[in-house]
Amino acid sequence: MAPTDSLAVFLDRARATVDAALERHLPRPPRCPAIVSEAMRYSVFAGGKRLRPILTLAAADAVACLGATSGTRPTQEAALPAACAVELIHTYSLIHDDLPAMDNDTLRRGRPTLHIVYGDGIAILAGDGLQAEAFALLAREPAGDQPALVARKLRAIQVVGDAAGTIGLVGGQAIDLQAAGQAPAGREGERPLDADGLREMHGRKTGAMIRASAVAGAIMAGASDDLIASVDRYAADVGLAFQIVDDILDVEGSAGELGKTAGKDAAESKLTYAALHGLARSRELAAECAARAHQTLFDARLTAGYLGGIIDWVVSRKN
Amino acid sequence: MAPTDSLAVFLDRARATVDAALERHLPRPPRCPAIVSEAMRYSVFAGGKRLRPILTLAAADAVACLGATSGTRPTQEAALPAACAVELIHTYSLIHDDLPAMDNDTLRRGRPTLHIVYGDGIAILAGDGLQAEAFALLAREPAGDQPALVARKLRAIQVVGDAAGTIGLVGGQAIDLQAAGQAPAGREGERPLDADGLREMHGRKTGAMIRASAVAGAIMAGASDDLIASVDRYAADVGLAFQIVDDILDVEGSAGELGKTAGKDAAESKLTYAALHGLARSRELAAECAARAHQTLFDARLTAGYLGGIIDWVVSRKN
Repeated sequence: MAPTDSLAVFLDRARATVDAALERHLPRPPRCPAIVSEAMRYSVFAGGKRLRPILTLAAADAVACLGATSGTRPTQEAALPAACAVELIHTYSLIHDDLPAMDNDTLRRGRPTLHIVYGDGIAILAGDGLQAEAFALLAREPAGDQPALVARKLRAIQVVGDAAGTIGLVGGQAIDLQAAGQAPAGREGERPLDADGLREMHGRKTGAMIRASAVAGAIMAGASDDLIASVDRYAADVGLAFQIVDDILDVEGSAGELGKTAGKDAAESKLTYAALHGLARSRELAAECAARAHQTLFDARLTAGYLGGIIDWVVSRKN
Repeated sequence: MAPTDSLAVFLDRARATVDAALERHLPRPPRCPAIVSEAMRYSVFAGGKRLRPILTLAAADAVACLGATSGTRPTQEAALPAACAVELIHTYSLIHDDLPAMDNDTLRRGRPTLHIVYGDGIAILAGDGLQAEAFALLAREPAGDQPALVARKLRAIQVVGDAAGTIGLVGGQAIDLQAAGQAPAGREGERPLDADGLREMHGRKTGAMIRASAVAGAIMAGASDDLIASVDRYAADVGLAFQIVDDILDVEGSAGELGKTAGKDAAESKLTYAALHGLARSRELAAECAARAHQTLFDARLTAGYLGGIIDWVVSRKN
């Protein structure tokens, strides 16, 4: 993608590229039972924003713009499987989070959630299958046995595996369940979330995979360790801003705009950034994330690509 | 392990080695919320047979005995992370299979199932986390950036990822759910299992991960493609024999011996090998699997290790 494309063009192209690749990679019958294939596709192609794979492709693109890439294949081809993998893991986590045993959501992206349509059993399995496919895809593609490519793929799997695991996504959802009183409190006893707890929970639940998405793109583009660390720092602010804005939109938005139940956080007395700091201060906090992210990009000379535009989009988004 | 050890000694040592490594690798607080760490350990250390990791270590050992290994590190160290990973995936699949939305089992290995103790939400998350940890572990260990090691790890991840996914484990459980009428029948309409369907279902649900367990061991020991194919063929018969014997034991065993609810298959009118062929013919079928497996080992000159003893153990086991 030419760095002169506008952000909107980049986002549209990235989404189309990712969607086509997801369609290609998702298993179909007879490899996969029809019911699981249908259930996976129902959730994967539900009109998501594709923020995570966009970050993967944009990070790879920014690294390539810097001329820091040492790969022998076009950057996008190298990063596309990782982009698909992080979206598959994100989708699986939404499917499982929506289950009655978790957040018990019936509406997602304007449509009934997967377990409403296919039942809890198939929803659990579709999620499990998406996670396995994500790692199998990361290991399989892009094909090739060049030592540099193989080493990058392995590193990307490790980063994504850690972010998807108990240090990240799964750990964050467990903290969320406990805070909501839906899981045993454990040895520590009841521990309602405070500001630090809220930040830790979201850092795991949302932040870890957003960071891994961008980092995996940088890795696949052949970034140096320093550059990978900068991309990680940038993405941490993207993740925090994303969550703050999510909380603001839950207060301000309508179900029609959001495609999911609005006002749910307040109805359930969930601790959110909006509840903790108020709307005005929350908006300031999101703006501070954006300012820090831009500074990180500037310091790392990563301003040529779309990463700067993406943090602005995340902060200004309306759904 | 010296090839002169008796099978019993090998199995005991392998179990102790795997258990110690699992304890080392399973995440703990503060990396992992305490509740998830406890829940994972409850299920991982529930006294399982460890068939899958034993196959991983035994396959690596047999390949090493043949002198076909080209690795620079001791075989067991190279294969141990893969052995742990397949057990983590097996454990996650049991946790999810036991859920009310799936097989709705309350007893496993003589103890209440995980969701009975920790609730469905934490049980789902502990399973999700175990799957992620398995792939992160495969990518992380054994440490080292030698091109041969890195390539083997990547190949093992691909094999395990495919087996855990919809072509394997998840696909098999979906077919099982549909046959039990617990999931929508899909476009094909109702399709009760026949003999071929039963074989396909078990080939995915049990066979795929048993094959991947042995194959991952062979890969990590540096086996040639031909040797890997032989190990895969051997393990396919182990998997089939394992399932046939499982069905026999469900008829003949007591809950005390099995550590799980006996007679459940018949009570639920599930199609099993025992129901389809009768006990006597089922025993013959298991013996035929063993004979084929021994022939495969003989043809591949893999008779020096413990693989032959393992198929005999699988066929003669009482629980």
